[in-house]
Amino acid sequence: MRILAKDLKKAAEDGKKDVTLSGWVHRIRELGALSFIVLRDRSGLVQLVLDKKYDALTLESVITVIGEAALNEKAPGGAELRVSSLECLSRAAADLPFQVNGDVTKTGLEAILDNRSLSLRNPAIRAIFKTQATIIEAFCEYLRKQDFTEIKTSKIVSGGTEGGTNLFEVEYFDRKVYLAQSPQCYKQTLVASGLERVFEVAQAYRAEKHDTPRHLNEYVSLDVEMGFIESEKELIELEKGLLAYIFEEVIRKNSAELELWAKNGASAPEPASVSKAPIIPYEEALKIANVESSKKNGARIFDINPDAERYVCDWALREYGIDLVFVNEFPRRHRPFYTYPLDAIRTMSFDALFRGVEITSGGRRQHEYEAQLEALSRFGVKLESMEDYLAIFKYGCPPHGGFAIGLERLTAKIFGLSNVKEASLFPRDRRRVTP
Amino acid sequence: MRILAKDLKKAAEDGKKDVTLSGWVHRIRELGALSFIVLRDRSGLVQLVLDKKYDALTLESVITVIGEAALNEKAPGGAELRVSSLECLSRAAADLPFQVNGDVTKTGLEAILDNRSLSLRNPAIRAIFKTQATIIEAFCEYLRKQDFTEIKTSKIVSGGTEGGTNLFEVEYFDRKVYLAQSPQCYKQTLVASGLERVFEVAQAYRAEKHDTPRHLNEYVSLDVEMGFIESEKELIELEKGLLAYIFEEVIRKNSAELELWAKNGASAPEPASVSKAPIIPYEEALKIANVESSKKNGARIFDINPDAERYVCDWALREYGIDLVFVNEFPRRHRPFYTYPLDAIRTMSFDALFRGVEITSGGRRQHEYEAQLEALSRFGVKLESMEDYLAIFKYGCPPHGGFAIGLERLTAKIFGLSNVKEASLFPRDRRRVTP
Repeated sequence: MRILAKDLKKAAEDGKKDVTLSGWVHRIRELGALSFIVLRDRSGLVQLVLDKKYDALTLESVITVIGEAALNEKAPGGAELRVSSLECLSRAAADLPFQVNGDVTKTGLEAILDNRSLSLRNPAIRAIFKTQATIIEAFCEYLRKQDFTEIKTSKIVSGGTEGGTNLFEVEYFDRKVYLAQSPQCYKQTLVASGLERVFEVAQAYRAEKHDTPRHLNEYVSLDVEMGFIESEKELIELEKGLLAYIFEEVIRKNSAELELWAKNGASAPEPASVSKAPIIPYEEALKIANVESSKKNGARIFDINPDAERYVCDWALREYGIDLVFVNEFPRRHRPFYTYPLDAIRTMSFDALFRGVEITSGGRRQHEYEAQLEALSRFGVKLESMEDYLAIFKYGCPPHGGFAIGLERLTAKIFGLSNVKEASLFPRDRRRVTP
Repeated sequence: MRILAKDLKKAAEDGKKDVTLSGWVHRIRELGALSFIVLRDRSGLVQLVLDKKYDALTLESVITVIGEAALNEKAPGGAELRVSSLECLSRAAADLPFQVNGDVTKTGLEAILDNRSLSLRNPAIRAIFKTQATIIEAFCEYLRKQDFTEIKTSKIVSGGTEGGTNLFEVEYFDRKVYLAQSPQCYKQTLVASGLERVFEVAQAYRAEKHDTPRHLNEYVSLDVEMGFIESEKELIELEKGLLAYIFEEVIRKNSAELELWAKNGASAPEPASVSKAPIIPYEEALKIANVESSKKNGARIFDINPDAERYVCDWALREYGIDLVFVNEFPRRHRPFYTYPLDAIRTMSFDALFRGVEITSGGRRQHEYEAQLEALSRFGVKLESMEDYLAIFKYGCPPHGGFAIGLERLTAKIFGLSNVKEASLFPRDRRRVTP
């Protein structure tokens, strides 16, 4: 019966003489008549002591060893295995494209992405995705506690709620359909259906041609929608609670993973500090961005663009102790037709900016059939293409709203990664569709 | 502050005079000078008592009411609200396409699917998806406890692991790519990367032209993959534990939902009975199917086809007390090239058949680079198209395997639904791409 590396010390303390370990050959060191192998499994690293008869091994080969567990203060984890038998389950070719047991973070991003089965063997790279799994789990768990229902909706749609641009086209039998940009329409349908509170974790697609460190053409969207709200402020309160819980769980479960990226400033914000994140109306946020910009002799800012996002976060960190800001009341011209108006100019919408980048967009939605018709015509959307969407509002739809958090952006910001692609297992951009 | 229907009795017991409820108008009944409205919210139904001034209401309109909570043994839930003020938040058009408060299960499937925001208001229809959410949650929870890591992998791929047929083509900037049929290649990459144990809940796509009650062109796949196994038997043991836990959670959380489909025989199997599910080699399963078929004067069976799946499940229910069977050792000709051979003819593969339908396919995979090359050439797959796939095995890949459960099929079988589309919120088939 195999045990894990992390349990070897306990086995040594118990005097176990017949211990099996399995994993990858992380490091090999020769010393006189003995070989020392560092073995890596999903739980960590452990030292094996062998005589020379096994010395044909290559780095990264997969082996199973049996031996006696022994305490050794100098070995990682405080114990080692004195190997009596070794079986090579899979021999690794000797031409590794990069050194797995070194500082893989210095390897180029393209090589990391081209060789995921190797790059993820590095504890630092793996740390990103162990933590990402915690983020997903915490997101779902928090919402379930608040009586939200998990949904799974189609990613194949006949048109886009956002207006039909930036859609990937799919050959669907004898017609053209598209990959969904968001589950917007479905979330709203399900709120109206009486589920009232729904969430979904799923891929979303944007056929945007620009290739920036902030964008992916396929990303994981953490989507939320809820009924019976009065304004976007209830959504912001919900997101604050949600983010605080995610940070709490990341700190509880993944402090060791964050530690591996300490040089990048990796950390989750103190959960209690999230409630202090300011809520700033759009016009005020613009002013703040311009004051910050002028201090640094930067250009005049006319919109909450990436520069503004950084400036406003810098300001919030200085003034409120947390680089998380909720900007609300965006002008109608900047938001989709379905956004609920606050007045003739402003909307009940918001973005969440975290460490200099937008991680969330959301708001209250139109829920009145007649107002929706009017908004569609004002935005120049053809009614025929929106029949299914309009049907949501025809037979009783409560006031509602929602938001979506970009999983890769949130992950990247927690780890201090400079490119969001580093936070995607198999990112897709304009050039990359493999592996 | 709004309360939910389920909490009204408590409010009545506490003598609350200022209670707010919000929801949909489920039913209206006139009686002398009074109106009785049954209000529906996400928690259930509750009775409102009003005077006539509110009688312009339509069924399914969304309202908020304030009033005094009072105990009433004859009202659903044992309490009612004596309404002092009512606000209509969204008036429903009077031309409902079907009666929401009746037996919607008698409404045609097309109407149910065309009008999801209405059909889901019926408690029986909603029950399917409340339970489906439990299945997803239990799946994730069980695997996390077994040290599995949740992953999110790309659904946009440059080719198919299953050989390139039945793929939906996507226009991806200036090239053609495809929607993933399964995360097979990615799950294997991540096992080899040292995560060892991974799972994913995500959409999968099959461009199959046939339209049957068993098939969807987009479905949710509950995917599992793990390293360091010797045969498919360890995977079957894992799936037994997983299914037992899913059934346990469904019984614990969704007995009321199952009750609504009692006439269809809706139920989750007794969790303890799952361990008794037999494991039958393919050749033996064929013999059993033929014996069962001959008893019913059925046709001779040459393959585990849908008829055979039903016969084998009938047999298991009779012999082992559970209509769940694991058929293993499928012949090599019936399985993909990456399946690990047991001998020259058979493979270390299995299907799980539940209540007459295949809900899982899985097996141990090839993990040796040289054997993979040989298998690819025997199956006639071009090596150039498989470079990324082969890379998984080049630098140390443990023996491994996995399986996938079809979420909609499992849900449909628990509820006794005759068509798998009933277990998909927004199903996609050859004709349907809306809503």
